Amino acid sequence: MPELKSKYARFRQKVNIVIYGTSTKAGRLFDLILLGLILLSVFLVMMDTVAGFNQKYHYYLVLLEWIITGLFTIEYILRIISINKPFKYIFSFYGIVDFLAIVPMYLSFFVVGSSILSVIRSLRLLRLFKILNHPQFTGHYFQLKQAIHASKGKIAVFIYFVLISTIIIGSLMYVVEGKQSGFTSIPMSIYWTIVTLTTVGYGDISPATPLGQFIASFVMILGYGIIAVPTGIVTAEIAKKTNPKNSNPKTPCSECGAEDYPDNANFCHHCGHSLEKN
Amino acid sequence: MPELKSKYARFRQKVNIVIYGTSTKAGRLFDLILLGLILLSVFLVMMDTVAGFNQKYHYYLVLLEWIITGLFTIEYILRIISINKPFKYIFSFYGIVDFLAIVPMYLSFFVVGSSILSVIRSLRLLRLFKILNHPQFTGHYFQLKQAIHASKGKIAVFIYFVLISTIIIGSLMYVVEGKQSGFTSIPMSIYWTIVTLTTVGYGDISPATPLGQFIASFVMILGYGIIAVPTGIVTAEIAKKTNPKNSNPKTPCSECGAEDYPDNANFCHHCGHSLEKN
Amino acid sequence: MPELKSKYARFRQKVNIVIYGTSTKAGRLFDLILLGLILLSVFLVMMDTVAGFNQKYHYYLVLLEWIITGLFTIEYILRIISINKPFKYIFSFYGIVDFLAIVPMYLSFFVVGSSILSVIRSLRLLRLFKILNHPQFTGHYFQLKQAIHASKGKIAVFIYFVLISTIIIGSLMYVVEGKQSGFTSIPMSIYWTIVTLTTVGYGDISPATPLGQFIASFVMILGYGIIAVPTGIVTAEIAKKTNPKNSNPKTPCSECGAEDYPDNANFCHHCGHSLEKN
Amino acid sequence: MPELKSKYARFRQKVNIVIYGTSTKAGRLFDLILLGLILLSVFLVMMDTVAGFNQKYHYYLVLLEWIITGLFTIEYILRIISINKPFKYIFSFYGIVDFLAIVPMYLSFFVVGSSILSVIRSLRLLRLFKILNHPQFTGHYFQLKQAIHASKGKIAVFIYFVLISTIIIGSLMYVVEGKQSGFTSIPMSIYWTIVTLTTVGYGDISPATPLGQFIASFVMILGYGIIAVPTGIVTAEIAKKTNPKNSNPKTPCSECGAEDYPDNANFCHHCGHSLEKN
Repeated sequence: MPELKSKYARFRQKVNIVIYGTSTKAGRLFDLILLGLILLSVFLVMMDTVAGFNQKYHYYLVLLEWIITGLFTIEYILRIISINKPFKYIFSFYGIVDFLAIVPMYLSFFVVGSSILSVIRSLRLLRLFKILNHPQFTGHYFQLKQAIHASKGKIAVFIYFVLISTIIIGSLMYVVEGKQSGFTSIPMSIYWTIVTLTTVGYGDISPATPLGQFIASFVMILGYGIIAVPTGIVTAEIAKKTNPKNSNPKTPCSECGAEDYPDNANFCHHCGHSLEKN
Repeated sequence: MPELKSKYARFRQKVNIVIYGTSTKAGRLFDLILLGLILLSVFLVMMDTVAGFNQKYHYYLVLLEWIITGLFTIEYILRIISINKPFKYIFSFYGIVDFLAIVPMYLSFFVVGSSILSVIRSLRLLRLFKILNHPQFTGHYFQLKQAIHASKGKIAVFIYFVLISTIIIGSLMYVVEGKQSGFTSIPMSIYWTIVTLTTVGYGDISPATPLGQFIASFVMILGYGIIAVPTGIVTAEIAKKTNPKNSNPKTPCSECGAEDYPDNANFCHHCGHSLEKN
Repeated sequence: MPELKSKYARFRQKVNIVIYGTSTKAGRLFDLILLGLILLSVFLVMMDTVAGFNQKYHYYLVLLEWIITGLFTIEYILRIISINKPFKYIFSFYGIVDFLAIVPMYLSFFVVGSSILSVIRSLRLLRLFKILNHPQFTGHYFQLKQAIHASKGKIAVFIYFVLISTIIIGSLMYVVEGKQSGFTSIPMSIYWTIVTLTTVGYGDISPATPLGQFIASFVMILGYGIIAVPTGIVTAEIAKKTNPKNSNPKTPCSECGAEDYPDNANFCHHCGHSLEKN
Repeated sequence: MPELKSKYARFRQKVNIVIYGTSTKAGRLFDLILLGLILLSVFLVMMDTVAGFNQKYHYYLVLLEWIITGLFTIEYILRIISINKPFKYIFSFYGIVDFLAIVPMYLSFFVVGSSILSVIRSLRLLRLFKILNHPQFTGHYFQLKQAIHASKGKIAVFIYFVLISTIIIGSLMYVVEGKQSGFTSIPMSIYWTIVTLTTVGYGDISPATPLGQFIASFVMILGYGIIAVPTGIVTAEIAKKTNPKNSNPKTPCSECGAEDYPDNANFCHHCGHSLEKN
């Protein structure tokens, strides 16, 4: 009996290394297979909704989806039993996604049409990032992440003003266009304003009165200027992050604390103390 | 009698602190309630215009709108009586907005349909900025404001040229397309030019003749280059503002007032005076 | 007789100062009146094409257009006789525009419908720039002009590649979509490619086949990346131009020719020679 | 016989200089004629697909296309026989394009309608870049190429996230819109998401349900922020490349090889060796 237990413990450890690790050959192989299965499962869910394709290959689609659901279920169980703190995994973001990716198929036994919810499976694509941890890729990712993180505050202020503007402009257009040409309500007018300000311009709603078109022209030119703001914010941050001068912070001089010596200085040019770089 | 007067004076002072102040608990609570009421009132005005929603909940909508109008009226009166220079408030931007936010409901007694004007109420959303005076939010706001302020002149020049271009291109397209496919007049053609130059592209008007499509292609590629200009202007200003070098002004030399010494200078290189940095 | 001649000479000189000069009161007044007349004439040409407006006010429109044409004719003649080198003016850009602005109205006697050509009059709007020579406006204008001038070469290379790409993608889409959904010819496909790449997206032509939509998606994401290029070019130039460091070129040290001293240096830090700044 | 051989060798050498060289007069003339023929051939293929034009000038179009195909065939054969390593050319990118440009016309004898494939000829336009090797053009080209090359990694990361986002948003919209208004399948929804995120906005598919429009508004504002990222990446790189500080590399110190001395240094601040600038 203790033998069985230690066998199980060894099995758990092995599984943990394969599933959570990326350094062993088996771990990398597992990641690649998982990558393939996620892509396949997303592809299946997609094609399932294409009428012509579904009719033709319905049997194979269902079969493959069940196989993948089975494999994902096994993976989910193995992830739980092989980790030391299973609840931390279960209630983590990836844990919830992994769970939601398999549940809809089983639910479809009880609730007709619930298999459509397996589109949630597409969230598993996010795991692709964890799998593809190529150092260069990760490096670029962190630079972008830092730039976006640093821009967050300014972009929030910007979106706050854009939203208030869309409400005010939307209300104005509703009064001006008077329920004509799609401006049937203020929320609809706000939707139109967002479509116009962001320069998307579907054309499902477009102003028909001369005054409405005049205001619309004004909104478009405003949107033109406005698009410059988030671009400016992000660009300034990326420029700072990718600038070699800024990306490599210096250790202050141990004598006087100066940090603004040239990158290649051997001695502090304030106090003459030797700079021991690492 | 003087007692009553002093009571009223004390009441006025209290109200002033609650309404205009933000440092006391009551003041902050008032701001939060006002924030909620403004959002609710804007939501009501919006939903009032959604046909299905209005039919269903007409009674509640009208009731709530009257309650909010009443509360806003009380707030407006309190603002006037509690401030020392009431006329300065009444004719300030926020004073006028506060007044316009309540007037349409009362007007609806005399003029049918004038309650639609209560969409002006959405302008009260601007007060949200005053309420949300979180230091970081305000900091980002001022950096953006400065960058946009600094870009103002260049953007005015840019828009001036864009407007002249739209008139010239619009006139040209009117002649080329010859009243076909929506180009019914020069103002309409100018509207189309703005829709195209700003890359909005509704598609309500689009060129039908080969020559018109050729010119349109040219306009689009021009618009492509043109969008770069305001972005460039704003980006350059934001980059300057967010650059730590510029955002951290130096204390002038105590001897000659120079501010343009290198970041690491110990002595002013104009007059040789020692720079005591903090 | 010589008296008459000298009178005429004095008249010519006076007219020259009023028309071409901007420093005298009369000259400035003339500029303002001309500005008003140009705006009015462009407005008339525009409204002339609006069916409803034209029917109602046809008589007044024609009358006003003839008055303006008359005034512009007088201005044109005065410009020629008051300048010393009349042919230089006549064949200059503004001279040709001034001529084309008056000719269509007179032509309408002989050729029916040629008055439509008076839309050329909108080119006179360009003279607005000459009139509004406010120093700050002109300053911003020159900074932008320099930035755009400096970007010219790179933008030409960029547009060259964009045009080749549109031809190749347009040809591909024509083959893929097979005359369906508006892709009736390769020039039409190229037009669609430009509409898509520049993110205008009218929707008058849009792919209908799955493969076409797949390629379109690719083109859109490409267009996304591509729009970054001219923006990047112009932004980099504007950032350089508006950077106070670069906009103020230094005179080299008279002793050793160094130009890279700090902006506030009194002595060259290479050779110690005094820097006499102007 | 050996005479004939040497004659052939001389002929080969001459042809090689004319076709591959650009320094002789004949070589430059050949390039210009080739440039004209490529433009003409692309123009013919284009106009061939315009119904009205084709019907009118069918005979001339076919004739000219055969003449050009003949000339391109001669050029292709001469390229092969005049080069020393013909297989290297044949299997190079340009070699394959040159081959594909002539093959469809000959194929049209055997397979009806295969002449449509001569649109591949438009790829020959790429050769235009080789021909137009003006030094300034090439200089700008390389700066842009370097900037785009340097941005490649970050843009790949960015597109990776955009693609995952489009799949997730597309799946969501499919569930929300429920096959209404064009969202007939998940791939179709993903196509719509790309059209919206890139702000192209055809309007062939647009959300009809309030919830769908709400999510669409969110996607548009996201797309607004997202477009800032590639622009920021490319701008930062172009700014670095066009910055005169970076574009003017220093000659390393002859003693210790250091390159990072200040622009105005007279002595290397690593080893104290004199820096002789040119």
